[in-house]
Amino acid sequence: MAKGNINVSVENIFPLIKKFLYSDHEIFLRELISNGTDATTKLKHLISIGEAKTELGDAKIEISIDEKAKTLTIKDQGLGMTMDEVEKYINQIAFSGAEEFLEKYKDDKNDTGVIGHFGLGFYSAFMVAEKVDIFTKSFKDEPAAHWSCDGSPEYTLVEHDKSDRGTEIVLHIAEDSLDFLKEEKIGGLLNKYNRFNQVPIKFGTKKVNDPNFTPKTTKDKDGKETTEPHKQIEVDNIINNTNPAWTKAPADLNDEDYTNFYRELYPMQFEESLFHIHLNVDYPFNLTGILFFPKLTQNMDMQKDKIQLYQNQVFVTDNVEGIVPDFLQMLKGVIDSPDIPLNVSRSYLQADGAVKKISGYITKKVGDKLASLFKKDRADFETKWNDIKVIIEYGMLSEDKFFDKAKKFALYPTVADTYFTFDELIEKTKDTQTDKDGNHVILYTSNKEAQHSYIQDATAKGYEVLLLDSPIISHLMQKLEGGDAKVKFARVDADFIDNLIKKDENVISKLSDEEKENLKPIIEAAVPKETYTVQLEAMDSSASPFLITVPEFMRRMKEMQASGGGGMMGMGNFPDMYNLVVNTNSPLVSEILNTKTEKKQKRLISQAFDLAKLSQNLLHGEELTNFIKRSYELIK
Amino acid sequence: MAKGNINVSVENIFPLIKKFLYSDHEIFLRELISNGTDATTKLKHLISIGEAKTELGDAKIEISIDEKAKTLTIKDQGLGMTMDEVEKYINQIAFSGAEEFLEKYKDDKNDTGVIGHFGLGFYSAFMVAEKVDIFTKSFKDEPAAHWSCDGSPEYTLVEHDKSDRGTEIVLHIAEDSLDFLKEEKIGGLLNKYNRFNQVPIKFGTKKVNDPNFTPKTTKDKDGKETTEPHKQIEVDNIINNTNPAWTKAPADLNDEDYTNFYRELYPMQFEESLFHIHLNVDYPFNLTGILFFPKLTQNMDMQKDKIQLYQNQVFVTDNVEGIVPDFLQMLKGVIDSPDIPLNVSRSYLQADGAVKKISGYITKKVGDKLASLFKKDRADFETKWNDIKVIIEYGMLSEDKFFDKAKKFALYPTVADTYFTFDELIEKTKDTQTDKDGNHVILYTSNKEAQHSYIQDATAKGYEVLLLDSPIISHLMQKLEGGDAKVKFARVDADFIDNLIKKDENVISKLSDEEKENLKPIIEAAVPKETYTVQLEAMDSSASPFLITVPEFMRRMKEMQASGGGGMMGMGNFPDMYNLVVNTNSPLVSEILNTKTEKKQKRLISQAFDLAKLSQNLLHGEELTNFIKRSYELIK
Repeated sequence: MAKGNINVSVENIFPLIKKFLYSDHEIFLRELISNGTDATTKLKHLISIGEAKTELGDAKIEISIDEKAKTLTIKDQGLGMTMDEVEKYINQIAFSGAEEFLEKYKDDKNDTGVIGHFGLGFYSAFMVAEKVDIFTKSFKDEPAAHWSCDGSPEYTLVEHDKSDRGTEIVLHIAEDSLDFLKEEKIGGLLNKYNRFNQVPIKFGTKKVNDPNFTPKTTKDKDGKETTEPHKQIEVDNIINNTNPAWTKAPADLNDEDYTNFYRELYPMQFEESLFHIHLNVDYPFNLTGILFFPKLTQNMDMQKDKIQLYQNQVFVTDNVEGIVPDFLQMLKGVIDSPDIPLNVSRSYLQADGAVKKISGYITKKVGDKLASLFKKDRADFETKWNDIKVIIEYGMLSEDKFFDKAKKFALYPTVADTYFTFDELIEKTKDTQTDKDGNHVILYTSNKEAQHSYIQDATAKGYEVLLLDSPIISHLMQKLEGGDAKVKFARVDADFIDNLIKKDENVISKLSDEEKENLKPIIEAAVPKETYTVQLEAMDSSASPFLITVPEFMRRMKEMQASGGGGMMGMGNFPDMYNLVVNTNSPLVSEILNTKTEKKQKRLISQAFDLAKLSQNLLHGEELTNFIKRSYELIK
Repeated sequence: MAKGNINVSVENIFPLIKKFLYSDHEIFLRELISNGTDATTKLKHLISIGEAKTELGDAKIEISIDEKAKTLTIKDQGLGMTMDEVEKYINQIAFSGAEEFLEKYKDDKNDTGVIGHFGLGFYSAFMVAEKVDIFTKSFKDEPAAHWSCDGSPEYTLVEHDKSDRGTEIVLHIAEDSLDFLKEEKIGGLLNKYNRFNQVPIKFGTKKVNDPNFTPKTTKDKDGKETTEPHKQIEVDNIINNTNPAWTKAPADLNDEDYTNFYRELYPMQFEESLFHIHLNVDYPFNLTGILFFPKLTQNMDMQKDKIQLYQNQVFVTDNVEGIVPDFLQMLKGVIDSPDIPLNVSRSYLQADGAVKKISGYITKKVGDKLASLFKKDRADFETKWNDIKVIIEYGMLSEDKFFDKAKKFALYPTVADTYFTFDELIEKTKDTQTDKDGNHVILYTSNKEAQHSYIQDATAKGYEVLLLDSPIISHLMQKLEGGDAKVKFARVDADFIDNLIKKDENVISKLSDEEKENLKPIIEAAVPKETYTVQLEAMDSSASPFLITVPEFMRRMKEMQASGGGGMMGMGNFPDMYNLVVNTNSPLVSEILNTKTEKKQKRLISQAFDLAKLSQNLLHGEELTNFIKRSYELIK
């Protein structure tokens, strides 16, 4: 039996790194900056406990490009490395510097936040570089080192005369990665991954007005004033904010701070957010963050702004699937947690206990915040309802715990702009809108304009008509109906109003049964029978002669299927079916019945039918053109 | 100066593999199957040149799951490895077996298609496994080997009694990857990456009717026939087609073969494709493939079906951005090329000469195919136009070479279903539709139903009206107008017809100038002046009294901005502006002017204005309800 160590050679590891990484080449910069950040925060820690006798100073990380030399340089002012440490951390690759560091200082209470993986991340440099130089000088009194490797298994390591503390990594960019020598590209990456980095990052310089210079104003002989130009000085261009709002305590922030942070996070977004939720928990997991409820918008750019996931202020991803519950993915903001495992599959993530708890915690916090906003200032909450309703309704459908909480603050607005909670709605309408069979009928419209005449008929009876227009509302109605056998939702155009809420009032029909029997075939012959079912009804004589209605059940099933899930399979493909309600008490209908000439009868039916179709936006094209012509004739 | 070899240890390389790979864990299976495929095709090659004295037999790759033991096994019947070869290929990781093989046999002409990277891919096993066993027996007469490694730097290598040729890799799946023990998961991966693999892949067994068994039918005493159940046998479940259509010569395929391949590629797609383009080129790059023009569909699932990129029949990605020109990304099908570099950034890909040539080649092939289809059977091409127009119009806008080619077959259909090429259209309309200033006006509608009455006015004059309804058509019109200073496009409702194409005919106004001066303020007072500009025109007396028109320039700029690019900035936010054309020769307009009571005058204007609004679908809500009520009164 043979035993041995697997011999991994450098020749082989660089192709390996490249092979698996074609989509994510850009992360090398994040990795190298993370190393520099660790080196700086570790040094700070060592100084604080008296192990390092040096000044931290204004330590920053400097990124610079030399397009001619084809190099990209990352330079920090952190711990630095001695020759021995280069041998240990770089040559024995993937030796976790941070872990050894933590091991050594683990009894010290101040050691959180310095976890890193020096070594592992470093080798990602070879994703874009054909050669890498390291110049490094330790904070200890030892000579500086220069390590160099061109991707072959051999490296060189020599003493160097570098005198300032810290590590400078020079990447000689490979031919297939020359992109990474462009200022816009590197600027874009810094902005994506590091704009909240814990240590300041300098990328070039910028000109600003000299604060120590006051421009002089002089008068010429005509009394005309001239001000000399402001003196400009060059200062470091620091690309990051090392103390973003989410790292602070909520007590130290006011509304303006949150507004400013929202703008900082999404500079292309000009709308303000509606409100924020500050997340802050230590146990059983570490998580900080700020979530924002955005204003509803058609703006596609805005929809691209997603919740961003950070680990110790370094951007990881904006795919928070599995971490943030689905219904909250439309929120904006930041979550920062070192406790979310990243190098696992999505399905593992979803099954992971800690991650489940994070998701549950976020749901709870959002529910509590909404409940408190509703309680504190209901009028304000109502003005925001239209922007937040889809998120809340989606949450009510997908999470039962949230449904129970949201029942108290979810709102049902009427066409008259009154906002009811569900309990208030039931209370308000139970006397007037309960029919003779005990069904409590909630009337609603999906579109105030399109269903205007039907709404008018309902409000004329003193009924409340809700305006429910979210895409998923039919699913929510189904759920609410399921919770109370007596409650039924019906759209105002599902039938004529006296049929929607049947009372014990008998309207007497002016037409005899015989007359009705004569009338029905006449009307049926004049309308397409595949689409319209003729229904004779004794209605108020002043009501419309003809009315087109859309039965609730079929329509809702089709809508539910269209918006995904629920609904009956295949329903989506059924043709639209309508009822044509004929008001037997309308004088026009009597006239139709009693008209002697067939031509006039047909004209009356056509005109009345077209007007009924107009109410349902069903008159188009040639039919509409002909109707308009006929109508012009009628005016004359 | 120190020089040395970088010491990479196994302890370190597995975390490295995991660290960078969280999104793509699943590729390990593709990598291991590719190794098995290489081992099989290499053996076949060695047999063919007499270097291996063995029978290939019915060599396949077998995938099996043992949920209890938590193992996933990949077993091939290829070359196998001797103890020495395991030492060389596995222990010295990333040693490219295929390259050495190619080096050895490079003078042989039959050596294409055996390129692989054995070794490199193997280590991806540690993305999901905590321990890996290899059992392998070479085709050479040497003992079999068993290699085992649990992710520590130590491996064991011992002789084994395995007697059948080939390599068996057993993955002991890690706790965070237990997903990969599920049949659906592995079945899904095989279907995604390997359904056209060159070597058959067995995944479990399935029952089929025994072909050697004929069920007996017996009669009972009442003469009732009973047939015994069919005998079933278990056979290998082979999940792949080793000879997909694109690997064959076009001459060996008929239309049905292409149809079948389309179904094979997109089993959830029930629509057939319109036509296909078979790609086949050796120089200056290797590329095969079949592209399909799909039928236009609203089906979201269909839109998810994308062009798939393969390398040697192994799926790589369905992101072909940069490889296939943008305007052809809506096509479906397969491209297979070993020459597309994958482990580089997208921007490098777009700048790469070979890739540019591939993109150019595809554009040219598509253009040629369309030209030949148009020439061969124009009637058929016309029936397909509606499905392909967006792709072609997009191509004409984005690639000048394609524009020149497409000018000959791009079609302009009329509302009467006549299909003109641009040259035919110009020829057909140049006499009738050139106005008195020499402008050649092309009339079009974006919607036959919505603009019905306007179309009627235009066709009544004998003009051709195009039906142009693609989302990007306004950009194309702009480009076509740019190519000929005299040609102008105008939508039929951009003005009243005699103003759209002005001829030298003077229609005499029945109203005197004084009457017109009286009339204008009356009408202006009755319509909202922010939205409507009143325009008095002497039209035919039988034409509509009122007509609402939408000026071409503003509307088109807004449309262009909405569909992206072009158009004037900020135009999208302008309110809609209309002209209200009042026909001074209409009897109704005379009546309005001469009506004595203001009330009646107002009623006439309202009714006529509402009817004009109906023609443009501008009457809604309360206005519509009131109009309908008024109209019912008028019938009575």
